[in-house]
Amino acid sequence: MSHRYLEDLAPGQRYGTASWTVDLDQIRAFATQFDPQPFHLDPEAAKRTFFGELVASGWHTMAITMRLIVDGEAQLAWGFAGAGVEGVDWPTPVRPGDTLRCESEIVEVRPSKSKPDRGLAMIRTTTYNQRDEPVLTFVAKILVPKRNAGA
Amino acid sequence: MSHRYLEDLAPGQRYGTASWTVDLDQIRAFATQFDPQPFHLDPEAAKRTFFGELVASGWHTMAITMRLIVDGEAQLAWGFAGAGVEGVDWPTPVRPGDTLRCESEIVEVRPSKSKPDRGLAMIRTTTYNQRDEPVLTFVAKILVPKRNAGA
Repeated sequence: MSHRYLEDLAPGQRYGTASWTVDLDQIRAFATQFDPQPFHLDPEAAKRTFFGELVASGWHTMAITMRLIVDGEAQLAWGFAGAGVEGVDWPTPVRPGDTLRCESEIVEVRPSKSKPDRGLAMIRTTTYNQRDEPVLTFVAKILVPKRNAGA
Repeated sequence: MSHRYLEDLAPGQRYGTASWTVDLDQIRAFATQFDPQPFHLDPEAAKRTFFGELVASGWHTMAITMRLIVDGEAQLAWGFAGAGVEGVDWPTPVRPGDTLRCESEIVEVRPSKSKPDRGLAMIRTTTYNQRDEPVLTFVAKILVPKRNAGA
């Protein structure tokens, strides 16, 4: 897969990913390290929480999404070096057994005014479960180099 | 530590956390699973990338931040059930050996108009390294129950 430069990107382009099935062991392993709240750790205790059931940490969903994107169709020349993320939302909880995949769309391409060798791509990503319900949405600002730095 | 309800929160309140030292093994373990890009995996290969050195995945920094907050001073009654996050930025890279801690500030407290038993707290968090440089900033919308649901 060849790497894409700023000149290769245009609003409306869409990129997909493979899929990832998240099971109870993965959910608990991530939560044990990074988000040890009862609704991510214990199916019984989770019933007495706000969620009413065990669900994945939102940051676990984000981490899986990152992996799917890194391995996905949108290979960028500097990789995914995030200059910021806006509008992170988790519209549907991720449950054990869910299979996730992502769709990313180029929203805007903005050449840098001060640095002629690069620009920013605004990329909106939605992660879906196996019922095509969105489980995570966000817009990332990604640094992308120009193929022709003087152009 | 007693849990805080919506009535306990007011703009300007600040909460701290313990600290977490992140080493090369942790950075590589997270990146191997979730963000396998050369600048997170291999100190030599990282020299030839945009970063010029090995740095932690931004989502690793976020995951460590989540853990520090879950164990931190701001214990909320429903835990940290994020209804969304805005303005995620990583102003300084996290390098092996860095020691991270967080400061969170209540920005706004917004009782729900439709659901009398809850509200939203807007909480700005900054994660700092051992030189007090900010390495991560964001604002989270957190669902918080009222102590007196009818109030």
